[in-house]
Amino acid sequence: MLLVADNITVTNPVIEKALEKPDPEPVRELVRRCEAAGADAIDLNTGPLGRDPEKRMRFLVETVQEITDVPLLIDTANPVAMEAGLRANTKTAIINAFSLEPVKLEAILPLAKKYGADIIGFLLLPNGQVPPDADTKLSLATRLYEHVRQAGIGGERLIVDPVLPPVMWHEGNRQAMEAVEVVRLLPDVLGFPVRTIGGLSNLTAGDGGREKKRLLERTYLPMLAASGLSMVLLNVLHRETVAVARACNALISPKVFTWHDVG
Amino acid sequence: MLLVADNITVTNPVIEKALEKPDPEPVRELVRRCEAAGADAIDLNTGPLGRDPEKRMRFLVETVQEITDVPLLIDTANPVAMEAGLRANTKTAIINAFSLEPVKLEAILPLAKKYGADIIGFLLLPNGQVPPDADTKLSLATRLYEHVRQAGIGGERLIVDPVLPPVMWHEGNRQAMEAVEVVRLLPDVLGFPVRTIGGLSNLTAGDGGREKKRLLERTYLPMLAASGLSMVLLNVLHRETVAVARACNALISPKVFTWHDVG
Repeated sequence: MLLVADNITVTNPVIEKALEKPDPEPVRELVRRCEAAGADAIDLNTGPLGRDPEKRMRFLVETVQEITDVPLLIDTANPVAMEAGLRANTKTAIINAFSLEPVKLEAILPLAKKYGADIIGFLLLPNGQVPPDADTKLSLATRLYEHVRQAGIGGERLIVDPVLPPVMWHEGNRQAMEAVEVVRLLPDVLGFPVRTIGGLSNLTAGDGGREKKRLLERTYLPMLAASGLSMVLLNVLHRETVAVARACNALISPKVFTWHDVG
Repeated sequence: MLLVADNITVTNPVIEKALEKPDPEPVRELVRRCEAAGADAIDLNTGPLGRDPEKRMRFLVETVQEITDVPLLIDTANPVAMEAGLRANTKTAIINAFSLEPVKLEAILPLAKKYGADIIGFLLLPNGQVPPDADTKLSLATRLYEHVRQAGIGGERLIVDPVLPPVMWHEGNRQAMEAVEVVRLLPDVLGFPVRTIGGLSNLTAGDGGREKKRLLERTYLPMLAASGLSMVLLNVLHRETVAVARACNALISPKVFTWHDVG
């Protein structure tokens, strides 16, 4: 399971301001901390980038790639910004994300072929809503996969995001356990070892104390890891969560166990 | 998932001495702490009790049941001590444990019928060794179940212990993940919602630092919980592990999620 930092996000005022100016140093500083904390990849969550989307996305990708070689997830719903990010990329970029929404199929999915990029697909209904049950989620995955193939993209480019539910939603805990099951079943349903990704902080969105939220995330993560989750999007500066993620990998890995790999 | 305290054990010198004297107070003190820490049941691990097995087991069961109503797991390989424990019991006692070893089938299993007790069955080969793979474990479970039925005991009395492996064993991490899978598959293989139990501290038996051992246990526990483990045997005075166990239950429970149930 790879650790993807969710720290470079426009919802962080430091990043928002750095993008606004633009000022590369605060971005570099945070990227360095994420890599030191164990990030295997970094998500660049720019939001839609209403003004100057191309210029600002290019600035961000170039700034980050000046100091790191880890894969970047280009995380924006704006196709113009997405393409600018893919064009600026000189290392590895992953499209985050498309879904069955018509606008995503038309404007985002083709970029995976044009730029030879991996692409994350959300298990969402064509109207953007969350599907009601596991069976619907699994059938949405099959449809995502069909669209990927029809677009002339190799199926191995697809990374499925089951959209982890906030536990505070109606039946949120049941839905969270169902997401674990979906992650486990996806390779069998699609017929190949499809990769999966989940955003851990989604689980604890909304009300709740900070310590309890982190505890719940540290509890949920091994459940996802044991089900075969390939990538987890998380705040890599949460030390204890990263320690649990490393312990998950020490258990799951086909390598010989050593205590060095724990903690 | 119920929390079973593994704290009342003869390997603890305080308990060893209390059994020796006999002195009920140190036992009561520890039982009170275990209940306060969240124990749903208590394992009484007396070892074989070579001298005066009946008298000492009766002393222990009576001492504990004077101050608590939680179920007790009578944990001894000595059939004489086991029967003394079951005879002394006035509340709920569970036999811990039998296996396919001939001496266990002959001397321990019939006690479940005689005393109307639930009984834990280890997935061990008839020679007492650990089976080599998951398929063998699942077939051992089927054989345990057949022996239970042949002894005139209801199948619902059986609680299966897959024998969690030390991670330091040869391929210990692979075996640990296989145990998670065995727990998940057992109800399907046996054809009814068979209960399961696992001894968490087995995972970290042997060398290793204390903090890393606890971290690994806190990581492994949610994997077992998500697979449906019914009971976990653990040191209930390990606060963080108990907090994770409670968080597991908040996620797994069919009840509506509340933050009150976490931590």
